[in-house]
Formats: sequence, C-alpha cells, structure tokens
Amino acid sequence: MAELSARSGLPVATIKYYQRERLLPPGRPTAPNQAEYGDGHVRRLRLVRVLIEVGGLGIAAVRAVVDALADETVPLHELLGTAHYALGPPVPEEANSGEATAAAAEVQTFLDGLGWRVSREAPARRALASALVALRRLGRDVDASVFEPYARVADDIAAWELERIPDERRATRTEIVESAVIGTVVYEAVLVALRRLAQEHRSAARFGTV
Amino acid sequence: MAELSARSGLPVATIKYYQRERLLPPGRPTAPNQAEYGDGHVRRLRLVRVLIEVGGLGIAAVRAVVDALADETVPLHELLGTAHYALGPPVPEEANSGEATAAAAEVQTFLDGLGWRVSREAPARRALASALVALRRLGRDVDASVFEPYARVADDIAAWELERIPDERRATRTEIVESAVIGTVVYEAVLVALRRLAQEHRSAARFGTV
Repeated sequence: MAELSARSGLPVATIKYYQRERLLPPGRPTAPNQAEYGDGHVRRLRLVRVLIEVGGLGIAAVRAVVDALADETVPLHELLGTAHYALGPPVPEEANSGEATAAAAEVQTFLDGLGWRVSREAPARRALASALVALRRLGRDVDASVFEPYARVADDIAAWELERIPDERRATRTEIVESAVIGTVVYEAVLVALRRLAQEHRSAARFGTV
Repeated sequence: MAELSARSGLPVATIKYYQRERLLPPGRPTAPNQAEYGDGHVRRLRLVRVLIEVGGLGIAAVRAVVDALADETVPLHELLGTAHYALGPPVPEEANSGEATAAAAEVQTFLDGLGWRVSREAPARRALASALVALRRLGRDVDASVFEPYARVADDIAAWELERIPDERRATRTEIVESAVIGTVVYEAVLVALRRLAQEHRSAARFGTV
C-alpha cells in the first residue's frame, strides 16, 4: 500500500477511501494486513484521479464509470458514453419549461440535419436548447441555424481529437477512457481560453486604434 | 418606475437595488417621489441583466463595466476589455507555483509566435498555463505546441464573431458591450456543447460498430 501510494502520488488515506467506495479493487492478500498491488491498480488510481480532479466528477459518477470498465460485456462505445455524459455539461435548472421543450425539438431537427448520431440523453443537447432560450429572452430573434458555423468547427475539432485517442489494439480500456476524458475536459478549457484570447486580439485590431 | 419595470421585465425591488448599487443612473425628477426614465435606462437595465444572468458577474464587476461605460473618455476597446476580463474564465487557485510560472512563460512565447496582441492580465492566459500544468501532472509530455490546432480554430471563430458585433456608427456603446458579452458567453456554451455532441457522433462512428 505504501508503494502504491508512492507510485500513484496519492496519500494512503485517499487510496483507502477509494477502496471503501469501490473505486479500486482490493489487492491480492499476501499476509494479514498485507496485500499486493499491480500496474492495474496504478492505472486505475490515475483514472480515478483524472475523473475527479480534471473531470470534476463525484464519487457516484466515478463508480458508474469504474463499474462499466470492470464489466467486459459493456462495449467500449457505451463505456465512453458513460464517462462522457458524467462530464456534463451541467443541465440548466429550468430545462423543463415550455420554451425549453420547444427549443429541444428545434435542436433535434438541427442535429438531424447535420446527420449526427447522438443519444437523446446527451447533456449537451440541453445546453444547446437553453442557449436558444437564453438568446430569445435577451430579445435575439434566432433559430437553431445560428449554431451552424459552430457545428462545422466543432465537427472538425472532434474529428482530429478522436484520431488521437488510442484504440483497443494499442491501449487498455482504462487508458482509452482516461485519454478520452482528458481530451474532452482539458482541451475544452484550452479551446475556450484560446477563443477568448483570439477575441481580444481581434477586438484590439478592430476597435483598438482610432 | 412601474413603467420601467414593465418595459424591462424586472421587479421594482430589483431596479431599486441596482440603483442603490449605482448600476443604474437616477431618473429625471418630475415630482416628489416621481421620476422620468428613458430608453437609456431600459437599455442599461438589459445590459446589467445580461452581465449578471448570462455572464455570471457579481455586483462589483458589473459596476466596473458600468463606470467604464459612463466615462466617455474610456476608449471602446478598453471598455470591451473591462467587460471581457470580468467574464473570466476563473483563474485556478494554484496559479502561482513554480510550474505555473514556467508554463505562463511558455504561453507567452506561444502567443508571440501567433502574433496575437493580448494583455498580460488576460485571465485566459492563466487558463492555458494551468492546462499545460494539468497535462504534465497527468504524465503527458507536452509543450505549448499542442495548442496550435485549437488556436487556428479559435482565431477563425473570433474573426467571424467580431464581424457580427456592431460598431459605433450603428449602435450605442451599451449595445456594443451587450452584444460582445452575449457573444462571448452564450456562444461559448454553444461551442462547448457542439464539440461534445460531435465527439459523441464521431465516437459512435469509430467505436460503436464492431
């Protein structure tokens, strides 16, 4: 256990907590109060840390991912979906109003038009619907077509991001999930930050000099 | 005041609170306990609402924007900068470690390479630096060049977003700031959501069928 702590960089107390919460399987007992841990445990701990620290997941959400991971009958796509949905984005509170339902239907039509295969449960759908509702409340007369240029860009990004995720010939399921989660969360922050900086740069170019 | 409430859709108590907080100028007194409000007040209230409800700004941050707005000697670019920076992204706590300082220097070199004119105070810089730190802590051997494809995309997006913001020939300063804030915040959520959906769609295409 001390060795596992050293290799994972996590305090023993944290590792024991994860074990009690069933996020990490027990080691192979070698003596009373002694157990052996392997590379699988180190990898699992790293994934759990990524989900919690990078993805901001709660314990229950991590457990859902870990359970799907342990069950080899769960197809990889479904496993990735479990992790992906747990990452959010958080669903806005007022997602059940009449306007929100109408907006959700418009989002569906829009996604159909793109030919995207996306589950009905995807949290990001509701984020789109609520953006539409927000814009209208602000007096903007918009429909889902305002999303079009963003969808094109998003699809380009996703295409080359997906290529960087290893497949089952080159990596374990744990590593694939870890890679997908890091890609989704960390590079989302990168994209958002770079868009802000690009806006500032271009705003300087347009408004800065009179 | 009752009319202003009806036109802005905000309760009288909220409008009075904004006035006490100096977010809204007083009306023109017409009688004791009576004042006249104009279109400028309605526009201002809409902007304040956008900053708080869409941008998530606190009262002090809104006041900074409103003060810059009222001071006609503040150039538009600086005014937009005040609003833009108040929007975040929030700066990660551990932004002052040695790794973070090194990462910030790498971000500077990277931005120089792009030729972007960006203030040293831009919060998004620190978001980039901390993404670099996070990736390294996760064992990824990366440098700022991993940002490159995202920077290209972000610059394309910012270019056509900036075009949609009206200029001083067509809109008041209040309207320009409002448009910029809505564009930055609401369409950031749209971009993030669409990237997630595109990832799911492409993940289905790649991992979904065996």
